[in-house]
Amino acid sequence: MVHKVAVIGAGLSGLTSMKACLEEGMVPTCFESSDDIGGLWKFKEVSEPNRASIYLDFPIPADYPNYMHHSKILKYFRMYAEHFKLLQHIRLQTLVKSVRQTPDFSRTGQWEVVTENRDGQEERHVFDAVICCTGHFNYPNLPLKDFPGIDTFEGKYFHSWDYKGPEDMYGKRVVVIGIGNSGGDIAVEGSRVAEQVYLSTRRGAWVIRQVSDNGLPVDIKYKTRFIYILFQLLPMRFFNWFGEKKLNAMYDHTMYALKPKHRLFSQIPVINDDLPFKILSGAVIVKSNVKEIQGSTVVFDDGSVVEKVDIIVFATGYNYGFPYLPSSAVYKSGYRVGLYKHVFPPNLEHPTLAVVGFIHALGAILTQAEMQARWVVRVFRGYKKLPSNQAMIKAIENDTKSIDKNYIVSKLTPLQVDFVSYMDDLAGEIGVRPCLLWLFFTDYPLFKRVFWGPVTAYQYRLMGPGKWEGARSAIFTQFDRMYQPLKTRQPAEQETSVATGLIKLSLTIMAGGAAVYYVRVHHPTAIPSLLSKIHPQTV
Amino acid sequence: MVHKVAVIGAGLSGLTSMKACLEEGMVPTCFESSDDIGGLWKFKEVSEPNRASIYLDFPIPADYPNYMHHSKILKYFRMYAEHFKLLQHIRLQTLVKSVRQTPDFSRTGQWEVVTENRDGQEERHVFDAVICCTGHFNYPNLPLKDFPGIDTFEGKYFHSWDYKGPEDMYGKRVVVIGIGNSGGDIAVEGSRVAEQVYLSTRRGAWVIRQVSDNGLPVDIKYKTRFIYILFQLLPMRFFNWFGEKKLNAMYDHTMYALKPKHRLFSQIPVINDDLPFKILSGAVIVKSNVKEIQGSTVVFDDGSVVEKVDIIVFATGYNYGFPYLPSSAVYKSGYRVGLYKHVFPPNLEHPTLAVVGFIHALGAILTQAEMQARWVVRVFRGYKKLPSNQAMIKAIENDTKSIDKNYIVSKLTPLQVDFVSYMDDLAGEIGVRPCLLWLFFTDYPLFKRVFWGPVTAYQYRLMGPGKWEGARSAIFTQFDRMYQPLKTRQPAEQETSVATGLIKLSLTIMAGGAAVYYVRVHHPTAIPSLLSKIHPQTV
Repeated sequence: MVHKVAVIGAGLSGLTSMKACLEEGMVPTCFESSDDIGGLWKFKEVSEPNRASIYLDFPIPADYPNYMHHSKILKYFRMYAEHFKLLQHIRLQTLVKSVRQTPDFSRTGQWEVVTENRDGQEERHVFDAVICCTGHFNYPNLPLKDFPGIDTFEGKYFHSWDYKGPEDMYGKRVVVIGIGNSGGDIAVEGSRVAEQVYLSTRRGAWVIRQVSDNGLPVDIKYKTRFIYILFQLLPMRFFNWFGEKKLNAMYDHTMYALKPKHRLFSQIPVINDDLPFKILSGAVIVKSNVKEIQGSTVVFDDGSVVEKVDIIVFATGYNYGFPYLPSSAVYKSGYRVGLYKHVFPPNLEHPTLAVVGFIHALGAILTQAEMQARWVVRVFRGYKKLPSNQAMIKAIENDTKSIDKNYIVSKLTPLQVDFVSYMDDLAGEIGVRPCLLWLFFTDYPLFKRVFWGPVTAYQYRLMGPGKWEGARSAIFTQFDRMYQPLKTRQPAEQETSVATGLIKLSLTIMAGGAAVYYVRVHHPTAIPSLLSKIHPQTV
Repeated sequence: MVHKVAVIGAGLSGLTSMKACLEEGMVPTCFESSDDIGGLWKFKEVSEPNRASIYLDFPIPADYPNYMHHSKILKYFRMYAEHFKLLQHIRLQTLVKSVRQTPDFSRTGQWEVVTENRDGQEERHVFDAVICCTGHFNYPNLPLKDFPGIDTFEGKYFHSWDYKGPEDMYGKRVVVIGIGNSGGDIAVEGSRVAEQVYLSTRRGAWVIRQVSDNGLPVDIKYKTRFIYILFQLLPMRFFNWFGEKKLNAMYDHTMYALKPKHRLFSQIPVINDDLPFKILSGAVIVKSNVKEIQGSTVVFDDGSVVEKVDIIVFATGYNYGFPYLPSSAVYKSGYRVGLYKHVFPPNLEHPTLAVVGFIHALGAILTQAEMQARWVVRVFRGYKKLPSNQAMIKAIENDTKSIDKNYIVSKLTPLQVDFVSYMDDLAGEIGVRPCLLWLFFTDYPLFKRVFWGPVTAYQYRLMGPGKWEGARSAIFTQFDRMYQPLKTRQPAEQETSVATGLIKLSLTIMAGGAAVYYVRVHHPTAIPSLLSKIHPQTV
């Protein structure tokens, strides 16, 4: 019977995991190596745009904006931790050095956790279960060997992990390598002060805006159940075609030298609202892959060179790993750490080890981590059985194949999941997946909002374990809460009467004129011939 | 016979005026009070986004971006001045103190110009004619009396004219007053470092992006002769409706608290690509008009307050004036300095005084100033007669009425003209307005580009005085030159085969499904009734 749970890391996954433990009557102890909660939201400038989410039974304050500054997110985490009385369970400045099965693991499923405090003192603890919440942005990937001549580089180079702000770039010539979210952000920010920024990309990228159609946040607009269902029904080709067309209508990715070989939905797109204008105004110049470096000169694959480079930023992503885990608990599947539904190692005798927050989707990680944690504690509690190890391994290998097939995969990006599919899958495990058919017949107004509206965590609080009475009303008010922080000035009244008739008339005249013009130009003989048919005598 | 011409100011209008003088064999002397050419492009951070133009027989270097940084614009001006040998005619650090008619003005039309050099020494000169190129961004409008309690304000306040960068705003609470181009730019830039920026606006504004449809520069996309002709044919209501619909599709101006009372085409819209995301993410909060200031608290018209304000920026525009001119040469018409076609004072005995660059349009000021200068020198030369003073005054009063009718006018914004109408009007005076009908029959490929493409200065170099042999080819290559600076990486090949059939099939299925769903929901009895008609026996 699991009672004591170790939670490793006090970032967002750690906080939501602790809360889930407490709700099931278990006692968490959270070890956090740094001196504060909040994980990456605390310790660095935001590399990944801070996409907010409306979620859970602890709503974000009404006046908080839709996309929050990292300081506001951290503030929210603090409020969350206080509200759910999590702080007393957190041990700051305590590093987890190792997690090992106890000698009697076969019988108890227990783990021995060795920690080190800031004075270097080690301590040993025994826990009934362990949740790893150390994320996947910890180990910068700096592939210097792929950049011949980097040792001759006369300027300064560093990984995006070390980037804190553009101060050092004032008046400098900067090459940013890699067009992930970090690379895009650093290029844009740097370009405001640098003499020139070059953004080098091997593959190119599809770039989306957070300010989506009509100014709605992109998640709210497109992360809906309706669109998810369309994705099940129609071929991916259609969505690639449609999505790329829409993106190119904003700005032509070919003209902007961004167009990648891969299709839109083969990789999570880069999120950047500012990059297009920076490219059009020449502040950021997109370049191909770096071939080599010679002194202060950078040579690109297409033979072009950039001279007098002062700074190279490697926005080349992160490796990931669990150095504190025994190798016996880490199952490898291709590039991936093989975890059953991205959570449970498949090769243990007891399901008392879990990983939360080790995924990457175009959607709120907070909501996903919470769902994982809800599932984890139910498995720990024994309410929910996992399949046999063999079945889990088979499922993992199938996942690996499917990721290989659907996405552009490298050792850096094996964590991709589809937001709604994954949420629904875990919700099915817990028994909280909303039943659309049932809603359709019993609560049509709610059905409409669940079907057409954004998939938020509230949808998984309507029924089953963890059901929350406020969920229905939260779904009804989620758009109000999105508008709320924008209601800071009374805009002018909407026009009441639009001269629709006039407009239709105008459109008709336009269309007619255009048609005549078109025919006149492309079929010069058509009009005389038409006229001759109407009034033969006039020709 | 005009030979010696004084040009006051060496900004863009001054440079193009000098060039026009030289081309007509006149000798310009340019007095510039500062120590460099370039006008506002030299002395301050750009308040107005630096919209570039492709123009004239001195093309911008091919690798220059479509929207240039002010340093690149200044560089271009230097190249321009050197190429046309203008530098020898410029006297830097020489302030024009007064311009007066000579005693024999009635006979000679000459002017006495008094200048002061940096050592305070005055000098008197006599010129045959004078062109005033001192612009309209010289005299900050700081309406402190409209802000009761500003004397109690405990923080720092200044006019946008004094704004050089956001350095002082780090961690501060900032209120920016006014949502012109300067106000928008300062709010966005400040919000990157400030704790919070509030953007106060009395009227609201329509905000457009420079990155227009498909990523084309907004001028190239919409500043076409075709659209101009539509504007002549269709009612303004239509364009307001259509344009506002398009802008709201990017982001709903009501939701973003920006919506003004006035319609889109009643005022030149604010240009800002970054503001929407700054509003959505809460970094910039839009507020109503400031009612009063109490210590460090700012009270708004709607009763809301913002406390602990550190900085107030008055982005409240500019007054304008010609303090060096005699009042007899300044004809007032309502809010406006009344100038015939925005260039010539109507009340002089001789047309030997002109103003260049004293307009405001949604289009390249450079192109317009050049056209004005071409007209001015032809009038100076006597090739072109002006109407009688009475006729000019009548025309000016009509202009004033028309501006009053079509635009939101205040004493700060009486300079608005429609770009294409105005260009065509002056071109008609000079005799260089392109004849569409002629082109249609004689050079159809050129007609197509002139009709559908952007209205650039090349179109006014096809025929008549100042005709340039390169103009036709420049028009044919203007899109290439727009793409040129973006060709910095070879993007992936376009997909060759799109499964069009598949897509059409998908769309059909979607539409069918949607129709059934709609009918099922909104007309629940329709399907059974329909079925009963098809197979009466099944019901």
